[in-house]
Amino acid sequence: MRLGTCVERITRADADAVAALGSAGVATVHEAQGRTGLLDQALRPIGAGTAAGTAVTALCPPGDNWMLHLAIETMRPGDMLVVAVTSPNTDGYFGDILAEFLRIRGGRGVVLDCGVRDVAALRESGLPVWARAICAQGTVKESLGAVNVPVICGGVHIVPGDVIVGDEDGVVAVPAAHAAQVAQAAKARIEKEEAIRARLRAGEATLDIFGLRDRLSARGMRRFETLADLERAEREG
Amino acid sequence: MRLGTCVERITRADADAVAALGSAGVATVHEAQGRTGLLDQALRPIGAGTAAGTAVTALCPPGDNWMLHLAIETMRPGDMLVVAVTSPNTDGYFGDILAEFLRIRGGRGVVLDCGVRDVAALRESGLPVWARAICAQGTVKESLGAVNVPVICGGVHIVPGDVIVGDEDGVVAVPAAHAAQVAQAAKARIEKEEAIRARLRAGEATLDIFGLRDRLSARGMRRFETLADLERAEREG
Amino acid sequence: MRLGTCVERITRADADAVAALGSAGVATVHEAQGRTGLLDQALRPIGAGTAAGTAVTALCPPGDNWMLHLAIETMRPGDMLVVAVTSPNTDGYFGDILAEFLRIRGGRGVVLDCGVRDVAALRESGLPVWARAICAQGTVKESLGAVNVPVICGGVHIVPGDVIVGDEDGVVAVPAAHAAQVAQAAKARIEKEEAIRARLRAGEATLDIFGLRDRLSARGMRRFETLADLERAEREG
Amino acid sequence: MRLGTCVERITRADADAVAALGSAGVATVHEAQGRTGLLDQALRPIGAGTAAGTAVTALCPPGDNWMLHLAIETMRPGDMLVVAVTSPNTDGYFGDILAEFLRIRGGRGVVLDCGVRDVAALRESGLPVWARAICAQGTVKESLGAVNVPVICGGVHIVPGDVIVGDEDGVVAVPAAHAAQVAQAAKARIEKEEAIRARLRAGEATLDIFGLRDRLSARGMRRFETLADLERAEREG
Amino acid sequence: MRLGTCVERITRADADAVAALGSAGVATVHEAQGRTGLLDQALRPIGAGTAAGTAVTALCPPGDNWMLHLAIETMRPGDMLVVAVTSPNTDGYFGDILAEFLRIRGGRGVVLDCGVRDVAALRESGLPVWARAICAQGTVKESLGAVNVPVICGGVHIVPGDVIVGDEDGVVAVPAAHAAQVAQAAKARIEKEEAIRARLRAGEATLDIFGLRDRLSARGMRRFETLADLERAEREG
Amino acid sequence: MRLGTCVERITRADADAVAALGSAGVATVHEAQGRTGLLDQALRPIGAGTAAGTAVTALCPPGDNWMLHLAIETMRPGDMLVVAVTSPNTDGYFGDILAEFLRIRGGRGVVLDCGVRDVAALRESGLPVWARAICAQGTVKESLGAVNVPVICGGVHIVPGDVIVGDEDGVVAVPAAHAAQVAQAAKARIEKEEAIRARLRAGEATLDIFGLRDRLSARGMRRFETLADLERAEREG
Repeated sequence: MRLGTCVERITRADADAVAALGSAGVATVHEAQGRTGLLDQALRPIGAGTAAGTAVTALCPPGDNWMLHLAIETMRPGDMLVVAVTSPNTDGYFGDILAEFLRIRGGRGVVLDCGVRDVAALRESGLPVWARAICAQGTVKESLGAVNVPVICGGVHIVPGDVIVGDEDGVVAVPAAHAAQVAQAAKARIEKEEAIRARLRAGEATLDIFGLRDRLSARGMRRFETLADLERAEREG
Repeated sequence: MRLGTCVERITRADADAVAALGSAGVATVHEAQGRTGLLDQALRPIGAGTAAGTAVTALCPPGDNWMLHLAIETMRPGDMLVVAVTSPNTDGYFGDILAEFLRIRGGRGVVLDCGVRDVAALRESGLPVWARAICAQGTVKESLGAVNVPVICGGVHIVPGDVIVGDEDGVVAVPAAHAAQVAQAAKARIEKEEAIRARLRAGEATLDIFGLRDRLSARGMRRFETLADLERAEREG
Repeated sequence: MRLGTCVERITRADADAVAALGSAGVATVHEAQGRTGLLDQALRPIGAGTAAGTAVTALCPPGDNWMLHLAIETMRPGDMLVVAVTSPNTDGYFGDILAEFLRIRGGRGVVLDCGVRDVAALRESGLPVWARAICAQGTVKESLGAVNVPVICGGVHIVPGDVIVGDEDGVVAVPAAHAAQVAQAAKARIEKEEAIRARLRAGEATLDIFGLRDRLSARGMRRFETLADLERAEREG
Repeated sequence: MRLGTCVERITRADADAVAALGSAGVATVHEAQGRTGLLDQALRPIGAGTAAGTAVTALCPPGDNWMLHLAIETMRPGDMLVVAVTSPNTDGYFGDILAEFLRIRGGRGVVLDCGVRDVAALRESGLPVWARAICAQGTVKESLGAVNVPVICGGVHIVPGDVIVGDEDGVVAVPAAHAAQVAQAAKARIEKEEAIRARLRAGEATLDIFGLRDRLSARGMRRFETLADLERAEREG
Repeated sequence: MRLGTCVERITRADADAVAALGSAGVATVHEAQGRTGLLDQALRPIGAGTAAGTAVTALCPPGDNWMLHLAIETMRPGDMLVVAVTSPNTDGYFGDILAEFLRIRGGRGVVLDCGVRDVAALRESGLPVWARAICAQGTVKESLGAVNVPVICGGVHIVPGDVIVGDEDGVVAVPAAHAAQVAQAAKARIEKEEAIRARLRAGEATLDIFGLRDRLSARGMRRFETLADLERAEREG
Repeated sequence: MRLGTCVERITRADADAVAALGSAGVATVHEAQGRTGLLDQALRPIGAGTAAGTAVTALCPPGDNWMLHLAIETMRPGDMLVVAVTSPNTDGYFGDILAEFLRIRGGRGVVLDCGVRDVAALRESGLPVWARAICAQGTVKESLGAVNVPVICGGVHIVPGDVIVGDEDGVVAVPAAHAAQVAQAAKARIEKEEAIRARLRAGEATLDIFGLRDRLSARGMRRFETLADLERAEREG
């Protein structure tokens, strides 16, 4: 976090990896990279879209969205805007005018660790947005933050150019350097889940499919026919 | 709460009572049993369905959904899965694979005092789910909890076999032994509300319908023509 | 806040101003009156409607909705019911019976600093409602509050007769005496935003449209070609 | 709330009434003025002091404490500084330098609907402070708020010159015009409570002292010798 | 939860077991009964005392403390008052007058799933109190709750007569029937912890004392000399 | 975040810089490094101590403190233990046994983004601890996390070896590479604040000391003699 700095040019993750991660979805990507990178679940979708792109970051003081204007200028088609704040704030940093500017620049979506407004227009426009709050409170343009520096957004460390994937489950970030590898792991996981579903439909139980049944007794799981049996065992010590 | 125990066979509430309670809806059932049994309002529907069934319970450590796999095995058609946690947690305990397993077993819905994921798939499937959070964070299968023991879910004491009713207003639980009696009371309440609506449409005021008008003055309600009159009375002490 | 008082007749904001403010929407009205009057963002729409009207107020003890019955009696076509509480509470103060009563009286919508229930029915009816919570918990009619006195609702001081505007962004209140002036300012703001959009579509950047570009360097914004350049500058102090 | 305005001279509540209210304490004052005026319980004392004084108000944007500097200049001995915010924020608006400035001006204490810092120094100095948060995050001096206009602080409407009383129970505000009357009522309440304590010590029960015993049965309270008796009655319907 | 009922006589846990559990403390008792019975950590001590006793319960509507007066009448020396609410509320249900009444009856302490007031007096008196909030807001005596029925307090199911233990870590409840057995287990745990401390002071590491070292590698823990080594391994896949 | 990895040897910040930062305190250090590095204000001191040291990190699953045992083994005199979690959790990860182990290893303090227990013992021992919660709930040792990898704790990215400073205002982290430079800036800031205090005591106002007075009018601050004057100006438009 370096207030008062702007980086012009970022190194973006590979576009094919971005596409593959986007089609895998948030829960699968999160699993595929070892259960890391998931943003705070309080960041919820405004509307119901899904999106994947490369992060352009803005770091903002509370109630001040000046840096968003500068950050959007650095966006290229395929980017996602990621907005972090220096202290918790729910004001409406992003509304329909910035949305129009972002779409003109080719932005694919927006993730904010703060609030948005004009949500009726945002929903109608179809732009995918994830935010911590919906709030009409306006912001000022008085204090410098930073653009395209690494930020913490939703509790995750995001470097400009990282992959951002969002859907109805939330938002996950993947470091650009790991994107291809995670995309590969995600693909493998999807195939594995398909196999699991086939076994489920064939009548198997998940404890058997996952090999978890024997471990239950190894761990000392005690089984009782009825609750009365359990209560009797407890009374008898 | 007895960690490390599983009860195989539970005593379920009467199916006719379950159906009657389900059609009455959460607010009416809550009133009909003396304003008890309502789960914490933070448990919200994922999607917009309604459901009623008999409780199969799982008690889980934080971030560990092992017991759900075992609990679903004990489900029969008409059951609802009720998931309690030993400490607050918003991880995604339930997703589309468990949903598929539950549907195969005939489960009618799920209530979780924690998080769910794969919500796009859950919504598409139509399975009624109520949860405290939507979160893609995965869970482990390492620590024993309990299955089909009484639990506290959403601040309500639920015994396996109790009736669970969920709709857009939330979730309510009815002890199995009281199900028929509460269903009867719910039916009476619905009829009474119909009569109230008829009087409303005929032009009566609710204070008259509920017999609350005289009590207002008995309690000392002071009426003023305008706010200026009230302020004048205050100034004059 | 004067418990135990009811004011019968209120001075309502001008109907044309109410209509103009309603069509401007919450974010614009909030800006047009100098960024004041916005209710706490935790008050969210139940359903997706918009509404504007003049405030009829009820002040209620926790878990007690008696005053709503009295307040609705004082409503006239074009009013909005505004419900404040003497201490925080999420119980369901308002449901489908009161909704029916309110519609008969010509009420345009409801704003509650507490909870509502019967939301499936409320949504189906199309009545615009904003509330802090959805909760089936019933309320009593035992303690006097107040009707048509000034209240704090969602952190905003609202006088009976003030304009209330609600949409998907939340709820804003405008003092009756300022309604025409704020409506005028809102209209000017909408025209200004249209001009901004036209310049955006013509390819201009927002920093230029808002005249913010020069101030960036005046404030000392430092620009770096790449993140590596920034890090090098930091190392060299 | 009028951003960009400063009022120089305020009308303060009567000093004797302030002193009387201060010695009565928050809970008693709150009762004495009809259970109104209590600030949100999330505003907690930093340290354990008590204080009473007349309100000098500052209204601030999020993360911006410029107005505090101006507000303190308008303080006279016997005043309390009351800080409101235009949107929720926990930054440290007030620290030891402002505390020193305030003490030099004769300020008796501070109430903030936001955060404070340097709390070790504040506690050591003995200055009574109530705040929503303790947070070292610094604030800027970039945007105008307002000084000595009516504000909402902790959910209460406070006019400059109103009486502010704080102790370990929280903070209460009393309109200047009502101060003498409320002080009188507080004195009466203290005497009444003394009489209640004497009766308690003489062995009476509170239900008898407050005349609440007969109402219990009038309301239908059912008494059972044991829990088993109650359960039996329930089973028998 | 049966509103409108009062049970006069309860079956209390064995006094020796209560004393033993009290001296063991909350964390140890919680462990000794299989990590159950711990109340929500949001219930914090007012002051710094510790206490143990048998539960007398009151179940109250929001903002209504009538039942406390009745519950305290049923208290005997050695009891703790446990206050549950039918919906979340932070009002001040308990203050210095009720505290005086409770001490006269021999009460040892109070646990409330709501708020308290007069905390300066409570702290001075030395009465141990645990509560969810400190709030001067007064309560009414209008609606029946219940006395000495099983309640959910802080998320735990408490039956009148159960053991309640509170200290700086929070509050734990032990069913009366298990009190002696849990007290025995607590004693064993204390001895075991003493042995662990002795081994610690003799220089052993906790992984060895608890036998957890081999399991680390069995689970696949990978060790790296430096962070650079780890990063190199990741790059090389 | 790499689950299942442990780094043995870390590069620690310079000990003189650690000492200098510790004596400067959290608010000053936060300012001195450009208002960055402050942990979430919800992490509060248990007790009232202050501490400064170099970070040894543990990353833990919810309800699982296994990694703390391993992390403490890697501690050297002068280190602080920093505990991060993979999802939000308030369980008691750290208690008096781990505290004893940590003190034997020379640890200076602990910062946890989760809960602690045995706080009476912790306070008595004088060990400085900052935590998100106090909770007696026990944790397991079943799932691998990571030791001495970079973590997000309290919303701040912390690399092992970074400086951690805690006092009553909270906790701040300083990257090891910047420690000397920030310590220098902190020293300069302390001297500057001393000069400000001297001017304050000499009777100057903070607006003059900070050179903020002229900017007030430049920004358009309007001054009114009384509130009535302001209201008159508003009416006259």
